Amino acid sequence: MDKISRLISEIRALDKKAMEEARRRQDSLTKPRGSLGQLESLSIQIAGIKGEARPKIHHKVIFTLASDHGVTKERVSAYPSEVTVQMVYNFLRGGAAINVLSRHIGGRVVIADLGVSSMIEAHPELKNKKVAMGTQNIAEGPAMSREEAIRAIESGIELVEEELLRGIDILGTGDMGIGNTTSSSAIAAVLTRTDVKKVTGRGTGLDEEGWRKKINVIQKAIKINQPDPDDPIDVLSKVGGFEIGGLVGVILAGAKNCIPVVIDGFISGAAALIATSLSPGVKSYLIASHQSAEPGHKIILRHLGLKPLLDLDLRLGEGTGAALGIFLVEASLKILNEMATFMEAGVSQGL
Amino acid sequence: MDKISRLISEIRALDKKAMEEARRRQDSLTKPRGSLGQLESLSIQIAGIKGEARPKIHHKVIFTLASDHGVTKERVSAYPSEVTVQMVYNFLRGGAAINVLSRHIGGRVVIADLGVSSMIEAHPELKNKKVAMGTQNIAEGPAMSREEAIRAIESGIELVEEELLRGIDILGTGDMGIGNTTSSSAIAAVLTRTDVKKVTGRGTGLDEEGWRKKINVIQKAIKINQPDPDDPIDVLSKVGGFEIGGLVGVILAGAKNCIPVVIDGFISGAAALIATSLSPGVKSYLIASHQSAEPGHKIILRHLGLKPLLDLDLRLGEGTGAALGIFLVEASLKILNEMATFMEAGVSQGL
Repeated sequence: MDKISRLISEIRALDKKAMEEARRRQDSLTKPRGSLGQLESLSIQIAGIKGEARPKIHHKVIFTLASDHGVTKERVSAYPSEVTVQMVYNFLRGGAAINVLSRHIGGRVVIADLGVSSMIEAHPELKNKKVAMGTQNIAEGPAMSREEAIRAIESGIELVEEELLRGIDILGTGDMGIGNTTSSSAIAAVLTRTDVKKVTGRGTGLDEEGWRKKINVIQKAIKINQPDPDDPIDVLSKVGGFEIGGLVGVILAGAKNCIPVVIDGFISGAAALIATSLSPGVKSYLIASHQSAEPGHKIILRHLGLKPLLDLDLRLGEGTGAALGIFLVEASLKILNEMATFMEAGVSQGL
Repeated sequence: MDKISRLISEIRALDKKAMEEARRRQDSLTKPRGSLGQLESLSIQIAGIKGEARPKIHHKVIFTLASDHGVTKERVSAYPSEVTVQMVYNFLRGGAAINVLSRHIGGRVVIADLGVSSMIEAHPELKNKKVAMGTQNIAEGPAMSREEAIRAIESGIELVEEELLRGIDILGTGDMGIGNTTSSSAIAAVLTRTDVKKVTGRGTGLDEEGWRKKINVIQKAIKINQPDPDDPIDVLSKVGGFEIGGLVGVILAGAKNCIPVVIDGFISGAAALIATSLSPGVKSYLIASHQSAEPGHKIILRHLGLKPLLDLDLRLGEGTGAALGIFLVEASLKILNEMATFMEAGVSQGL
């Protein structure tokens, strides 16, 4: 926990001077003030995060963390849990949606095993950060010990620190873990103090009966484990997952290193809830890439005070929404950097 | 008008077989069915437009058409009308927002003068399709003659036909014309049969008084000119603009040539209203890139039955929203083409 506390103590407020300069430049560009809406405000936020009036991004990195969930024993998912490891191999071969979208934006994907329930063959592109062979069933007891929760977060921090050597100008969060919408709904219910029914969706495709069952399982998990909403590590250990803990670490390390953090959908949102509960200053480093089709995601984003960039009815995870969001952030910075000013272009200003 | 009628008669319905094949492939890819939401439906629409189950796009072309509006004499804009020509020079030098975003998506911009009210120096990148030196003041009489309206549409068709020689796999619409939100509001009011107040916004930045004045001017224009809602060419000639007419032609020619048409914001939306009134079959070729901050745009999109891909509070025009939309369409096609199937990846399918 020392590593986490030290890191949190180093998260700074955004650089107001850089933001003012970026705002002034936006206002001098050949377009009516504010006419590029969120693209303008995004560029100003990034200027504040990076402490530069005209930041550029080159290295775009998506962290896709995989892990298994003991709660799949309760049949809360439309897919069997072996899909988690199968999808990790798919990531490593470049055939998954996140690979396609990462290539589309000229980014790279970091694949990490935080707790997949089977051994994965060593691969040069796979980061082995396995905390355990999947979590325990939260309907019967805690997902993991407090020590394991801390280890998961620290592993996420390490992933960012290791990748910094290759360069990270912006990062996106992503997840893979059959059963992890169940964990995320439990986290959202506890940390936003919302009725389980309102934050529980159909995941990858449950029917009505499956959905009711999932709600029952989450209610049972919260009742049995009594996660403490004022102790985010307790919530993570009682009803969370290793990939969620890892993403908490990725988010914290992003903020600490002045890297804009583009969060993906519902699972990343649950991680962001924990990260901001640990350190409220993290919020200003976050960009919500999209509004997931999962109903709990809207509640999370409202709680975090974030407006999503996209609303395309995505519910895949992996970091797919984050990849698209990174493209928009890059667009906002190119506008800031590459457009001509009224002066340069000899264009008359507004009345 | 013969050229336009002939072209309209050649617009086909989408290819259902290609769409079914694309849907089957989407369902075989390593993700839960439907989990990529609008990215999936987009790819299927494009398959239908192009008549290929796995279409690809290489040439991305944005048509940015400029023209002036006599109604600026009524002071309906926060910017003086000379900004139109100044911005054309800015486009030609590559310093405007549309240049930046077009480069970002790896596209090219076609700049055309449909009716700028001053002579523009010849430039290899500028298409001269000038119909007249700006429209007449719609608050006093018709914007243009019926012949000029037809000429503007035909010019748009020619722009696409000429550019086809270099290749167009997808096109975006864009506009530049001080005063053109006034025209677009008038078109939207007439063709969607909506109260002028509801379809009139603040354009590039009017204050409350300016906004009220703009509404009065539009009401006066409709009263004086009596545009016939059942005759879209009449509406264009009475209260439209040359760049709007040109965009009608671009949209019609896109549909005729089986090219997906990504429409930008409010002005492009007004052009799409006219194009679909001329030929309802055009609708299935349209993709709405974004929801503009202009209030009339929502009404236009609802009327057209289109759901916008983005909602970033943009209100610049030029084709900036269309450029971002094209990026998302390309993402959808890469998903369709490049992802592994369950079979290929050895991933278990859903229960």
